[in-house]
Amino acid sequence: MLATNPVENLQALIRCPSVTPAEGGALSALESMLAPLGFKVERMVAKADGTPDVENLYARIGSTGPYLMFAGHTDVVPPGNDADWSHPPFAAEIADGMLFGRGAVDMKGGIACFVAAVARHIEKVGAPDGSISFLITGDEEGPAINGTQKLLSWAAEKGETWDACLVGEPTNPDALGDMIKIGRRGSLSGRITVHGVQGHAAYPHLADNPLRGLLQLTRALMDKPFDHGTEDFQPSNLEVTTIDTGNPAVNVIPAKATAAFNIRFNDSWTAESLQAEIIRRLDHAAADSELRPGREPVRYDIVWNERPSHVFLTRNNGLIASLSGAVEKVTGRAPALSTTGGTSDARFIKDYCPVVEFGLVGQTMHMVDERVSVADLETLTDIYGTFIANWFDNARAA
Amino acid sequence: MLATNPVENLQALIRCPSVTPAEGGALSALESMLAPLGFKVERMVAKADGTPDVENLYARIGSTGPYLMFAGHTDVVPPGNDADWSHPPFAAEIADGMLFGRGAVDMKGGIACFVAAVARHIEKVGAPDGSISFLITGDEEGPAINGTQKLLSWAAEKGETWDACLVGEPTNPDALGDMIKIGRRGSLSGRITVHGVQGHAAYPHLADNPLRGLLQLTRALMDKPFDHGTEDFQPSNLEVTTIDTGNPAVNVIPAKATAAFNIRFNDSWTAESLQAEIIRRLDHAAADSELRPGREPVRYDIVWNERPSHVFLTRNNGLIASLSGAVEKVTGRAPALSTTGGTSDARFIKDYCPVVEFGLVGQTMHMVDERVSVADLETLTDIYGTFIANWFDNARAA
Repeated sequence: MLATNPVENLQALIRCPSVTPAEGGALSALESMLAPLGFKVERMVAKADGTPDVENLYARIGSTGPYLMFAGHTDVVPPGNDADWSHPPFAAEIADGMLFGRGAVDMKGGIACFVAAVARHIEKVGAPDGSISFLITGDEEGPAINGTQKLLSWAAEKGETWDACLVGEPTNPDALGDMIKIGRRGSLSGRITVHGVQGHAAYPHLADNPLRGLLQLTRALMDKPFDHGTEDFQPSNLEVTTIDTGNPAVNVIPAKATAAFNIRFNDSWTAESLQAEIIRRLDHAAADSELRPGREPVRYDIVWNERPSHVFLTRNNGLIASLSGAVEKVTGRAPALSTTGGTSDARFIKDYCPVVEFGLVGQTMHMVDERVSVADLETLTDIYGTFIANWFDNARAA
Repeated sequence: MLATNPVENLQALIRCPSVTPAEGGALSALESMLAPLGFKVERMVAKADGTPDVENLYARIGSTGPYLMFAGHTDVVPPGNDADWSHPPFAAEIADGMLFGRGAVDMKGGIACFVAAVARHIEKVGAPDGSISFLITGDEEGPAINGTQKLLSWAAEKGETWDACLVGEPTNPDALGDMIKIGRRGSLSGRITVHGVQGHAAYPHLADNPLRGLLQLTRALMDKPFDHGTEDFQPSNLEVTTIDTGNPAVNVIPAKATAAFNIRFNDSWTAESLQAEIIRRLDHAAADSELRPGREPVRYDIVWNERPSHVFLTRNNGLIASLSGAVEKVTGRAPALSTTGGTSDARFIKDYCPVVEFGLVGQTMHMVDERVSVADLETLTDIYGTFIANWFDNARAA
């Protein structure tokens, strides 16, 4: 029996407790859905010092182009306290039209629907006139070191070349059809340390309070926007996420203080140009003699997080129109083409082929009682099926 | 033999290792100097839950007014690593005209000189025509809970009423004769906690970053001076001495953040009026909708340090002129009448009688190789002796 039922597919996947980085049986369950459809399934284990080994899955049907990839992950975040759930997190119980379980929307649900859509396509019209692959990792919710990035590189080295990719992450804020992601902001983090001179609070002229310097520097990062947004992106935004000093004595001026920040940036910037702008602002503020009358510039250093996420925007009209048209045909609603939100594994895929993202409604992701409406699973399967047909028609015509 | 030699007095005191709160023999050594001069010496032990018991000393000669008090402390801060000292910290060795030891200037030296001045006065002209007392605590460098404050209250309950007080703390920045202290700024501390809403750094509109609020509040405290100084005092000054968040995840907006501050304030303010001004500034900044478009006011609370130091200024011209005249007569220099620096036990004494402060050069206080010039000990003894004569003449004439 082919895996044409998204609800059954999802129940099978949820019942595998694949809390990151455990495989938990989820990739095997997926393999048992794909192999009968004619997919050649490979399992690839990635390793790195200091991280757990992670199992990944790559499966392909067809041997020619056009070549469409579906990408996602079977690992899930921990359920927390099982007793807090209305239905056990790995039981996949249905109640009042909702299917409950960890990963229901993020994102075993997306995988279950895409498998069902492919199965129905094969059942109805046979194997696609081209190729489809599943690129599924077990390391999206973890450190993301032994996941999508290595799997892409491994597959590319074996000669895989894709024309387009759909990521099945939950993209809809409120209802199915709200939003397609056609790009993602970049993310850059750093930690600033200001070095002052310790001293007594009664003799500030003999000390140099690093918190004055740090406030002066963080102000320079926060007061003026980095940009006002672009055609496709919201404005870049910086948040100072921690300031720490650890000085227990209220009458002592501390010797140093640190602040960490994260900035989500749009396509006005690259990670490199943004780092340069941040350094420029910090140096300018550090040397502002009006803020530090009679003082040397603020002495600071900055350490950058070693793996920034790069911004990207997908400009492939055929891919976007195939997906957007499918959403509109099935739901009657024109989805927003958005670049909002956090990062996703699409940031790695964009280096290989154009990539868009569409999946379920994300409201309950990572929460207790994560759940999906059974009706949405059927609707998403229709959307994915229509997208597959649209995309191959479009690719053949091009 | 009367204790007329300040160098010998000081050596005897330094050789008692009275690291706060230990008596270390120092009060007994002082008692053995005062008793032969005719002082009635009392030892008073103060206790409080959660603090060590502390020995204090009160000694009086004479039974009528005018009544002059000398106040100070025999406890010292720890020496640190003995091996870092050129001369052992409790050996009181003299080398190249300098007497080395913990407490040399802060402030066993001041006590040694005042004892010598009183001894010379008695040797030369007999007991003073009035009364002199020593009010000496062992808890000035410690929490100051079982020290001067309790000793004053204990003596006052026994009927002691003073006309004036000299505190022998080191008041001179560079050379003997630089500076008399005729008042002290107040000191007030508080801790502000801002309550935000935790969230993901990619979705700042769904969170409320408490660090934005905290920076907005601390800026309101730091940007505008509280005053521009008064005739007798430098401007009030606020230092933020710690900001802490403890958020380890750079992509997470934290739930709350705290800042502690200390303000040294002048006689434009009382502790109460300053607290009101700080609250006014914080409330105004918290509600500034330009800084928080579309947001509720910043939610914060503030906890005040329970024991503020109150500002005071001594306006007793007879007392100040007696001391200033003595300094000028002996050193040829007119001392500055200052209210700078930290707090001292004079903040407690000012509730009982007018108080001024004059002692040695403070440069090496609390440092390794704390030391005093032997010549300065002789000079300070002269100054104290001249002051005693001046003050009694002046008080008798008034």
